[in-house]
Amino acid sequence: MPAAPRPLTPSERIDWLRLIRSENVGPVTFYQLLSRFGTAQAALEALPEIARRGGRQRPLTIASKAAAERELGQLAAAGAQLVAWGEPLYPSALAAIEDAPPLVSVLGQTQLMARAAVAIVGARNASANGRRFARDMALQLGGRGLIVVSGLARGIDAAAHEGALPTGTIAVLAGGIDTTYPEENRELQAAIAERGVLIAEMPIGTTPQARHFPRRNRIISGLALGVVVVEAAVGSGSLITARFALDQGREVFAVPGSPLDPRCRGTNDLIRKGARLVESAEDVMEELAPLLETPLAERRRDLFAGESRPAIPGEAELDRARARVLELLSPSPLPVDELVRECQMSPAIVLTVLLELELAGRIERQPGNKVALLPAGSISI
Amino acid sequence: MPAAPRPLTPSERIDWLRLIRSENVGPVTFYQLLSRFGTAQAALEALPEIARRGGRQRPLTIASKAAAERELGQLAAAGAQLVAWGEPLYPSALAAIEDAPPLVSVLGQTQLMARAAVAIVGARNASANGRRFARDMALQLGGRGLIVVSGLARGIDAAAHEGALPTGTIAVLAGGIDTTYPEENRELQAAIAERGVLIAEMPIGTTPQARHFPRRNRIISGLALGVVVVEAAVGSGSLITARFALDQGREVFAVPGSPLDPRCRGTNDLIRKGARLVESAEDVMEELAPLLETPLAERRRDLFAGESRPAIPGEAELDRARARVLELLSPSPLPVDELVRECQMSPAIVLTVLLELELAGRIERQPGNKVALLPAGSISI
Repeated sequence: MPAAPRPLTPSERIDWLRLIRSENVGPVTFYQLLSRFGTAQAALEALPEIARRGGRQRPLTIASKAAAERELGQLAAAGAQLVAWGEPLYPSALAAIEDAPPLVSVLGQTQLMARAAVAIVGARNASANGRRFARDMALQLGGRGLIVVSGLARGIDAAAHEGALPTGTIAVLAGGIDTTYPEENRELQAAIAERGVLIAEMPIGTTPQARHFPRRNRIISGLALGVVVVEAAVGSGSLITARFALDQGREVFAVPGSPLDPRCRGTNDLIRKGARLVESAEDVMEELAPLLETPLAERRRDLFAGESRPAIPGEAELDRARARVLELLSPSPLPVDELVRECQMSPAIVLTVLLELELAGRIERQPGNKVALLPAGSISI
Repeated sequence: MPAAPRPLTPSERIDWLRLIRSENVGPVTFYQLLSRFGTAQAALEALPEIARRGGRQRPLTIASKAAAERELGQLAAAGAQLVAWGEPLYPSALAAIEDAPPLVSVLGQTQLMARAAVAIVGARNASANGRRFARDMALQLGGRGLIVVSGLARGIDAAAHEGALPTGTIAVLAGGIDTTYPEENRELQAAIAERGVLIAEMPIGTTPQARHFPRRNRIISGLALGVVVVEAAVGSGSLITARFALDQGREVFAVPGSPLDPRCRGTNDLIRKGARLVESAEDVMEELAPLLETPLAERRRDLFAGESRPAIPGEAELDRARARVLELLSPSPLPVDELVRECQMSPAIVLTVLLELELAGRIERQPGNKVALLPAGSISI
């Protein structure tokens, strides 16, 4: 039985924030550390030693208590708050994904996050028809009680937020909660902060960079029961969001369009690959209605149980495992399951080694539970 | 083993023509009669008695030898010829459908009918983009060696014929081979008669009427390995062609379009129901290429074997069967298979009764091997 959601204590909140802001700690590693050490505080204490065992030579940068307190202060000043995985306010659909952000900054009508959501995303250079379609669909899905999630990009994203502003919309920001991006959506962003919700994974004050956008996209799909893609070129960010949705077990809907319009190639291709063709809010509701009855919250993992901590493997065994894992890994991402099989060692041992290597900055976690060796040049040991 | 294709003798041709032009004789009945009586001549002699047994009171109108000779003369004068099912020139894909026309009038470069074909059909009120798309696709599929079949309607059909004119196109007419319809495609029709092929099932001189169009559509799909639908409103004739294609075991391709354009609703709906979404000639070829290696000609039935004639059931048994079949039939179409099951009698007996009832004008055959009782008012006994 998973523990019931509960708010973190003030000191737990500081420890969680320090842990996720520490060098080489991503969400998957965060949850593994928490599960292995029981508390973020214990994990913070263990970090330097784990990194050293992974081959790290210079010390790992651990976020200080002062830095964490400063971030909380800045959030409060901006009218925002930090919500942790497992807290009552944390959106249950997002909590169900493997690499859910342990902490998110939120601003606005945060009670909206308790409702079921659908994402509407698409091309920045959308056609007038595409924008109108997105706006109407958002309006209608909002009318059916769904919260509309999007990424506040220009084009389809902005139109979807506009359509759902009266009923409830969530914008996921690639940068910090206080950054305005893109500039042309400044007014819309202010309106969402007032009437909807802004969510950000990056620390307050972070200017959005290219690498933040795919991470942002996994949160858009993670918040939603399904993702509707309206106009998307081949290779566009919206298709990345659709890919995340698929990996997360969420529905993927695509709006068809003329083959003569390159902005429809991506959506048509999604349909060819099995996404559901939708022409209206009714089409979307037809699929989502049954899902509204079985909340994703049921799938909560249990972080606070403590007793699930695996036994720590012996030193000699770990030495052999480290050599074997490094031998098998390469810069092309390998599924962790496959790695475990190839190693012919217990999952607990392999996961321990991966934790060490990640903290040492020698491997990188990738979506779909994959790991890749970082190229030699980027290793900072 | 089916008999090898062979030309009909001149007197067989007259008999076939008389049989198919006789009252209440459709293609399915034609083949049943031929199979039961061995020759069209024997079937013609048996017709009045069979109709009488089916409850017909006034005599059945049987096409005269003179009328058949007149039709052949008119065809020759128009430069057209009559091709019979099983003759070498008869298109093998068309021959494979259950209700293939026993005779078709053809005009033009008839050697083109030996090649593999694809149909391109769609809306009459097509958009400029839709017409351009159809023309380009026809041009490209023609370039891959495929003959392009369509219905010579304005809009998509005309564009498809135009695109394939240099490589080979077949227009299936709803009326007789000498009728020009629609008037605005007069020049195109003349060009196809010259460089492509015109095909008609109706007798020369027949003005096309509404009820001829669905019959025409089954020939369009029947001639082709697959049907590409470009722009089609819900409930349009192109969807009927797609339906026939499905029943005939042919591929159905649909070109997606904006949900905001009612001309795309039909194609989008086809995709939702399982038609393959295509954006280019390459997409179509990907599906058709494997089919080009296994010709439909393999599926030939054998009409000339004679020895396959079923035993004629006894009179008492037939009396019981007639009563039972009439009891089970209604104006809503019933699959013949189901009727046979419900009757709990041998298929040979049930088929004999259906043959009698059809010739008597009391039932109507419908696509998908179904039969329906004709409403009392329309019975001409």
